[in-house]
Amino acid sequence: MAVHRSAQKSVHLASRGIFSPGRLICRDCERTLRVTSHQRRGISSYGYTQSKALVYSKYGEPQDVLSLHGHSISPATGTNVVLRMLVAPINPADVNQIQGVYPAKPEMNTALGTSEPSAVAGNEGAAEVISVGSGVKSLSKGDWVIMKSTGMGTWRTHMAVDESKLIKIDTKEGLTALQVGTVSVNPCTAYRMLLDSAKWGFRGDEWFIQNGANSGVGRAAIQLGKEWGFKSINVIRGRENKEEEQKLRQDLYDIGATKVITEEELQGREIRDQIKEWTNGGREPVRVGLNCVGGKPATALAKFLSPGATMVTYGAMSKQPLILPASLLIFKEINFNGFWVSKWSDRHPDQKKQTVEDVLRLTREGRFKDIPVQECKWGWKTEVDILKAAVQGTLGGFRPGKGVFVFEEP
Amino acid sequence: MAVHRSAQKSVHLASRGIFSPGRLICRDCERTLRVTSHQRRGISSYGYTQSKALVYSKYGEPQDVLSLHGHSISPATGTNVVLRMLVAPINPADVNQIQGVYPAKPEMNTALGTSEPSAVAGNEGAAEVISVGSGVKSLSKGDWVIMKSTGMGTWRTHMAVDESKLIKIDTKEGLTALQVGTVSVNPCTAYRMLLDSAKWGFRGDEWFIQNGANSGVGRAAIQLGKEWGFKSINVIRGRENKEEEQKLRQDLYDIGATKVITEEELQGREIRDQIKEWTNGGREPVRVGLNCVGGKPATALAKFLSPGATMVTYGAMSKQPLILPASLLIFKEINFNGFWVSKWSDRHPDQKKQTVEDVLRLTREGRFKDIPVQECKWGWKTEVDILKAAVQGTLGGFRPGKGVFVFEEP
Repeated sequence: MAVHRSAQKSVHLASRGIFSPGRLICRDCERTLRVTSHQRRGISSYGYTQSKALVYSKYGEPQDVLSLHGHSISPATGTNVVLRMLVAPINPADVNQIQGVYPAKPEMNTALGTSEPSAVAGNEGAAEVISVGSGVKSLSKGDWVIMKSTGMGTWRTHMAVDESKLIKIDTKEGLTALQVGTVSVNPCTAYRMLLDSAKWGFRGDEWFIQNGANSGVGRAAIQLGKEWGFKSINVIRGRENKEEEQKLRQDLYDIGATKVITEEELQGREIRDQIKEWTNGGREPVRVGLNCVGGKPATALAKFLSPGATMVTYGAMSKQPLILPASLLIFKEINFNGFWVSKWSDRHPDQKKQTVEDVLRLTREGRFKDIPVQECKWGWKTEVDILKAAVQGTLGGFRPGKGVFVFEEP
Repeated sequence: MAVHRSAQKSVHLASRGIFSPGRLICRDCERTLRVTSHQRRGISSYGYTQSKALVYSKYGEPQDVLSLHGHSISPATGTNVVLRMLVAPINPADVNQIQGVYPAKPEMNTALGTSEPSAVAGNEGAAEVISVGSGVKSLSKGDWVIMKSTGMGTWRTHMAVDESKLIKIDTKEGLTALQVGTVSVNPCTAYRMLLDSAKWGFRGDEWFIQNGANSGVGRAAIQLGKEWGFKSINVIRGRENKEEEQKLRQDLYDIGATKVITEEELQGREIRDQIKEWTNGGREPVRVGLNCVGGKPATALAKFLSPGATMVTYGAMSKQPLILPASLLIFKEINFNGFWVSKWSDRHPDQKKQTVEDVLRLTREGRFKDIPVQECKWGWKTEVDILKAAVQGTLGGFRPGKGVFVFEEP
């Protein structure tokens, strides 16, 4: 595809031309090409799409290693589609990945014409199909899609990708791009942890207990639990400002929490009798624990699980290991495992599609509410410093974050 | 059954007469009966069996709370059988139970005619059937049996029990009473932990790693692992006496250990490369970890497990909790659970029978060797202090112990 098409004599556009703000370099002949301002704004007049991506070529703090790389995307051919990103969350795992402390490492290459082998950051997002190759069967222009797996690099305005790597949102009516773009990580994590630990079925008289209940996963778990007839004890960090704490409690009750307590209450003296009372003298078992904190809070949580229960760890906000008395494993037969949504979605693409569809169905029916996010608008002219600040602002650790890039129309 | 039969005018024997050394009290009329020395030695001439049992009526240190209680057992009727105990191990769980720190509490009652509600100590053992009731179908005089579940009180010379609570040893030929009497706890624990964690089947190129490898469970695991084509890394405590340590290593190699290392080596710097070499660069996964230690040794062990492996905890010799980095659960997808042989055998009597039979088959074929024990002979005249010293000598904690009561012919 090294054909140079020239509509204006002075402009060459290579099939995989490399776009830097203000200039376009032909990837094949390495000649610098002049670009019209129209092209620079995103969509070239020759069928080429201009894109900007947050890339990194070495690991480090996002503010140090991220840069905004412009390039052009050739028209879609074969089974390829060209996407315009709508929404891309900034999850803490994305930040850890950039820092190099995340076990899933991105592939670094020069496919986008970067001078160094680089990766595009970001792992989750919703996009709109803007053009399709002649061999594409499942998608049409205007469709909404999400990524089938992680590691696809969602922090960019546009991307070209094979249709097989996308999950089509069959019914986008009644949904916002934000809802679709944030469904893959937090709601899917809550959904699978609860459902896959609750193999016994839902009888309406069983409980789960979770810490970090105010996180994206925590709020999703409350709502899904309620939907499935599963009562919840939700542990939050206490706030110095008691009014704020009260508002937070009310927020969680509003979306379906059965009980909300603070970490201090969980580790206090009165909670044992309290939980016994709530669970009808222990006759309503606490079957599942969800832990994203670790350390003492996780030990305290585990002690309220009923015999044979499962505790799933999906984060370590305290950066402390789990500390588990052997009696919990031997005599109470508690099973301790973990959940990693990336691994799950890579391993079970069909289950991911079904899970996403189920959450979006509930969303459409008004039974699954948006989780609060902090939006960072990303337009064609947005400065890289704004984008990097949004990334840097997301806390480290594995804590589910709340920052989201929302892409503006080009 | 309050019928007093009188063969000699001066002797009454109640159906549930209470025997104390030197006298026999009728349980029903509370008259003291004269007893012949023949009766005192164990078997009454009237079909009654004299028994001595280590009982306790309150929790505490074995030396403080255990006493030797004599009583007579009426002739077997219905589906009852009368047993003569052959062998009864002194497991640390038995000691913990007497101390009152074990979660399975015995039922205390006065069925044996104790002045206070009491329990007979001991949970494992082999016995010989000495008489059967007319309704007994599965057992005959001379058969060997083991207990179907725990909590039956095996530290006594004789007992009466319903046949449904016993597992018959179908082929006792080629087996010693010691082999039969020690099969229910340690070998069953090793067998189920390895087999139930190894759901993937045995391909001959997979490993397990265990600490406390010199324990009864550890030695059983080595032998069963070898039998099933499962290589083993065995961690032992280092000995100050290096000759002794070397002998211990050799002992474990002799029964089939693939590798033997000390705790110090496990926590040292060179072990990572070493294990990598042993496991063919990691291509032979370490699928199962068996932990009876806890604390740092358990953390060190867990770090050598391959992704997706299972670590089973069955003891806490260090009396320290497990300390588990969240990454082991989330990213390496290690599953942490526990095994409690009592609960397992109570829940799966059929599986217990099958497991016991399989271990005894291997024993008979010379492929499963006895685990070293310290025998304490228990004859009709053995003083209670001798018995209590044997019990007290068994270490606390959940450590698999090695003391065994071996009953002498009456």
